[in-house]
Amino acid sequence: MATHASFNVGVIGLGSMGMGAARSCIRAGLATWGADLNQQALSALQADGAQGTAASAREFADKLDALVILVVNAAQVKQVLFGNGGVAEKLRPGTPVMVSSTISAADAQEIASGLAAYGLEMLDAPVSGGAVKAAAGEMTVMASGSDIAFQGLGPVLDAVAGKVYRIGSEIGLGSTVKIVHQLLAGVHIAAGAEAMALAARAGIPLDVMYDVVTNAAGNSWMFENRMRHVVDGDYTPHSAVDIFVKDLGLVADTAKALHFPLPLASTAFNMFTSASNAGYGKLDDSAVIKIFSGISLPGDKPEEKA
Amino acid sequence: MATHASFNVGVIGLGSMGMGAARSCIRAGLATWGADLNQQALSALQADGAQGTAASAREFADKLDALVILVVNAAQVKQVLFGNGGVAEKLRPGTPVMVSSTISAADAQEIASGLAAYGLEMLDAPVSGGAVKAAAGEMTVMASGSDIAFQGLGPVLDAVAGKVYRIGSEIGLGSTVKIVHQLLAGVHIAAGAEAMALAARAGIPLDVMYDVVTNAAGNSWMFENRMRHVVDGDYTPHSAVDIFVKDLGLVADTAKALHFPLPLASTAFNMFTSASNAGYGKLDDSAVIKIFSGISLPGDKPEEKA
Repeated sequence: MATHASFNVGVIGLGSMGMGAARSCIRAGLATWGADLNQQALSALQADGAQGTAASAREFADKLDALVILVVNAAQVKQVLFGNGGVAEKLRPGTPVMVSSTISAADAQEIASGLAAYGLEMLDAPVSGGAVKAAAGEMTVMASGSDIAFQGLGPVLDAVAGKVYRIGSEIGLGSTVKIVHQLLAGVHIAAGAEAMALAARAGIPLDVMYDVVTNAAGNSWMFENRMRHVVDGDYTPHSAVDIFVKDLGLVADTAKALHFPLPLASTAFNMFTSASNAGYGKLDDSAVIKIFSGISLPGDKPEEKA
Repeated sequence: MATHASFNVGVIGLGSMGMGAARSCIRAGLATWGADLNQQALSALQADGAQGTAASAREFADKLDALVILVVNAAQVKQVLFGNGGVAEKLRPGTPVMVSSTISAADAQEIASGLAAYGLEMLDAPVSGGAVKAAAGEMTVMASGSDIAFQGLGPVLDAVAGKVYRIGSEIGLGSTVKIVHQLLAGVHIAAGAEAMALAARAGIPLDVMYDVVTNAAGNSWMFENRMRHVVDGDYTPHSAVDIFVKDLGLVADTAKALHFPLPLASTAFNMFTSASNAGYGKLDDSAVIKIFSGISLPGDKPEEKA
């Protein structure tokens, strides 16, 4: 196995999470390569000390000891690996591939099969923690895969993760843990919005309601983080409504695949979908509160209530 | 106004919350009187230094500078105040009455009107924090009412509360804040149950799922507290399923009175009601997870899955 000094890792997808992961690899002393269609992102990573960057990871694939994929969804993962100009055929057999996008268990299993055809090991390894933790090399990683995959990705996990949960060996378990987590995150945002909307309807000052809840047993991480935006009337997107349309859609796919009812998650999915169709898809996910009519919220313009 | 040394307070309803409040008043040096139909509770409070106890507060009503009511629901509040043998007619005019049961805004307003007919001031003051905080004199009080009511109850609030939120002067606001809080508490328990049920269906070890969520953005106070019981397979009631059937019923009443839709709370209400009808009403509220079929949970007996 390569020593750290000569360990070459590639990162595909240099959005906020992928860029944070790549920079964390550089900081940890790994020879780090980056790929993205965004030339600005490549320049930024190059300036930060990347070994090399390119629009396609095919350019440096044969040098890699490990590959991390942090693109937006399963379709993009499949495209960069197996599509026209995909990287899988250029990787050396045995190279471990860490797939960290939020995807369904079925997609994770399909991707693992595709990689196995090239003799490549997959780690099913979604991440959480947001851009701040990614930048700090402290992402939470929920991973399943073989011991070989965990071992081969050891230097990368050390560099990018604050905490690694080993869920098991079966591909799909990591993805499912992330999806169950997103079920809770999405329902909690929608529940916070529903509660604050009811408070507004009842004439309760929202800052007082926020203060009571965040000091009591009704609190959630998402309530505390997102309902602050409602109190401030500031829907600048940190994570957008459409992200939860996507993630609760994955929750719904998972429920269907497992033949399992999810009364609350399906309701929250409808709420986010309604918010997106009403034109709030690109706003902060707390804007799901805007599906409620008959209330006045902080930041509302008088003409919006006509 | 009476000095602390000669301030007489009565507490009606010596369950876990009322007993904690009464003991906190004794500890604060108030002359404390207790009323309950349970003779054991009266003896216990007497032994702790109560000024006096009785099955009915009519026995000591004329001595009181303030009254606190901590019975189970609105019907009981009305009964002890205005029913046959009710205490309202025996209180001295001007005595402030702190109504701390979880009730609807409409009931709070009706009770305030009834008290006003006797020249009595009401504080609409639901509490939270559970038995432990009540015993420590650190309840959270969400209160609305007149300045006179707040002032008259000052020594009591000092004795029983860790934090007092003054929501406004209108009777009903305090009750509504508590009900909005219970909406979140109930939805979060049901969402936690739904997420853990899905994890069980997917074959994810529940202790791992619990560990991931409680260290991530999907966490809630209720998830962390109640889903521990699911992981341990221990449904010893701390707060029972039927309490949330009652409280989410109050949420539904409030929604109807305000002509406001609550997609998630109505779904959670159905989930707790189903759990109660399936025979789990007296179990811990986390037993709402038992409405999901087709899964195996910690503590399940093999014959239960036949």
